[in-house]
Amino acid sequence: MTEHFSDRLIRSIRAKKSVVCVGLDPRFDKIPESIRAAARAKYPNDVFAAAGEAILRFNMGIIDAISDLVPVVKPQIAFYEMFGAAGVQAFADTLKYAKSKGLLTIADAKRNDIGSTAEAYAQAFLGTTEIFGEKVAAFDADSVTVTPYLGWDGIKPFMDVCKNTGKGIFVLVKTSNKSSGDLQDLKVVTGTQAETEPAFGVVGHFAESWGADDIGEEGYSCLGAVVGATYPEQAKKLRAIMPTTIFLVPGFGAQGATIDDVLPCFNAGGMGAIVNSSRDINFAYEKSDKYGADDFAAAAREKVIEMNEQLKMVFDLS
Amino acid sequence: MTEHFSDRLIRSIRAKKSVVCVGLDPRFDKIPESIRAAARAKYPNDVFAAAGEAILRFNMGIIDAISDLVPVVKPQIAFYEMFGAAGVQAFADTLKYAKSKGLLTIADAKRNDIGSTAEAYAQAFLGTTEIFGEKVAAFDADSVTVTPYLGWDGIKPFMDVCKNTGKGIFVLVKTSNKSSGDLQDLKVVTGTQAETEPAFGVVGHFAESWGADDIGEEGYSCLGAVVGATYPEQAKKLRAIMPTTIFLVPGFGAQGATIDDVLPCFNAGGMGAIVNSSRDINFAYEKSDKYGADDFAAAAREKVIEMNEQLKMVFDLS
Repeated sequence: MTEHFSDRLIRSIRAKKSVVCVGLDPRFDKIPESIRAAARAKYPNDVFAAAGEAILRFNMGIIDAISDLVPVVKPQIAFYEMFGAAGVQAFADTLKYAKSKGLLTIADAKRNDIGSTAEAYAQAFLGTTEIFGEKVAAFDADSVTVTPYLGWDGIKPFMDVCKNTGKGIFVLVKTSNKSSGDLQDLKVVTGTQAETEPAFGVVGHFAESWGADDIGEEGYSCLGAVVGATYPEQAKKLRAIMPTTIFLVPGFGAQGATIDDVLPCFNAGGMGAIVNSSRDINFAYEKSDKYGADDFAAAAREKVIEMNEQLKMVFDLS
Repeated sequence: MTEHFSDRLIRSIRAKKSVVCVGLDPRFDKIPESIRAAARAKYPNDVFAAAGEAILRFNMGIIDAISDLVPVVKPQIAFYEMFGAAGVQAFADTLKYAKSKGLLTIADAKRNDIGSTAEAYAQAFLGTTEIFGEKVAAFDADSVTVTPYLGWDGIKPFMDVCKNTGKGIFVLVKTSNKSSGDLQDLKVVTGTQAETEPAFGVVGHFAESWGADDIGEEGYSCLGAVVGATYPEQAKKLRAIMPTTIFLVPGFGAQGATIDDVLPCFNAGGMGAIVNSSRDINFAYEKSDKYGADDFAAAAREKVIEMNEQLKMVFDLS
């Protein structure tokens, strides 16, 4: 029997006393010159392969530096797809390496489509594909982010795979960006004409119900939600609507959200949320007097320790 | 000066007298055994590479058979990502091959994210990435499908790339699946409390306005919309809201929509929409008494000719 995704995540949060998710968003021009040069020497005639190699080496450095400190990492696939199939291979290899170091993984891919296509995405990111009678995993992430715009039949194929594999998904509910209100804050009529709710709240209700059939021993669903730290009021409302949903919280640090902003995302005892930071950790060396580019891993480790320290107060929440 | 995406599409529709978009959604188990065996022989120790090779060969057969008949093809990336990086390479090679045969391409990827990440996706699918001072294109599609849930700042980075490259995007507005109403049909309050509009209509208004600054000579924006043929009433409403937006219309054939259902998607003279069919064309051989699996390309050609014939009445719309 495979352990439930939410139980795996929560037990790792407890073991590592950390609610931090490290985003792995490589920016090619910020990868140390030493790594880039070595990659180019290895693939002198293929810039894509060289870029993929540089990204993987950089990520391995970050992962080695932080794997004992946090429960989970989240590579954002856009920054890999920029480098074509070689970039996607680096994405797959990064997930594999993180797993080998005891980290859970979130493929931040924001996928979704109609039923049969959603099934293909679920197989690609969480499950296996049968080729010549052999079942092989394309990416084998522990979880993947998905968009809600197509409704339940775009979510169900992911849930079916989660049930059989102990994997999870995070559905976008309230995103951290400035324009997130364009659609997510629309006033939706619920019940009688007089009652309205913002669209993100309606999506929150949907997400909580979509996950209700698959709750782990720790009381959380394998269906999580993306809730931006940049909207603390909305997060508080969603926390009340979605008691059994784990929040993946972007927006801390580089996007401007503070500790106070992320607190409403948590339930008692520091459970129910993980807080992501990408740029601030990956390229911590840039803002440091102590570290140069070649010390990116040490700078990242120091930044994660600082972030764990800042966030440890969530474990005292009651 | 690069020609505007909508002009390129509309001129090709006129030249080929076809509003058909051929979806390229390979299903590994439906690819003829002869192609699969040859691919396996070429890559005996790498099932992913063998699958990628089989997919590419199959797609090349389809493209060769239909390139003179239709303006545009649309590979759905989920069916490639199932095969990992090798599948993604087959996706890139399929786009390249289609382009070499004079076809426009839609990367059906339904991507989106917050600003900086949307920028990375736009570079990946439509633009170029700079590696070691060299500007290279990861996928080089003519257009890509995107989701609207994050609002304008998830769309703008794509529009910026479109403006410089003559590329386009198709934003999901009303999707063809059964549950599309879960979110898309929510009753949204507009103006006073008494006036409401379904969410897809609000998104339609947004999409029309998002594209309003970039209209080509033929009167259409480089921002198109995905509008499912399975909801003809909603399509009619959207056609009125979005006069300068080209509709990409899924749902014809395998998903049940008929000619009558797609008619409301068109403006006068058969303009303003393209109708996608994937499975019915790719695997036309399965439903044929005349063709076996090895004749998949001839069966696909016959099916496309039939579909062009069925849809030619749209050119007489006034």
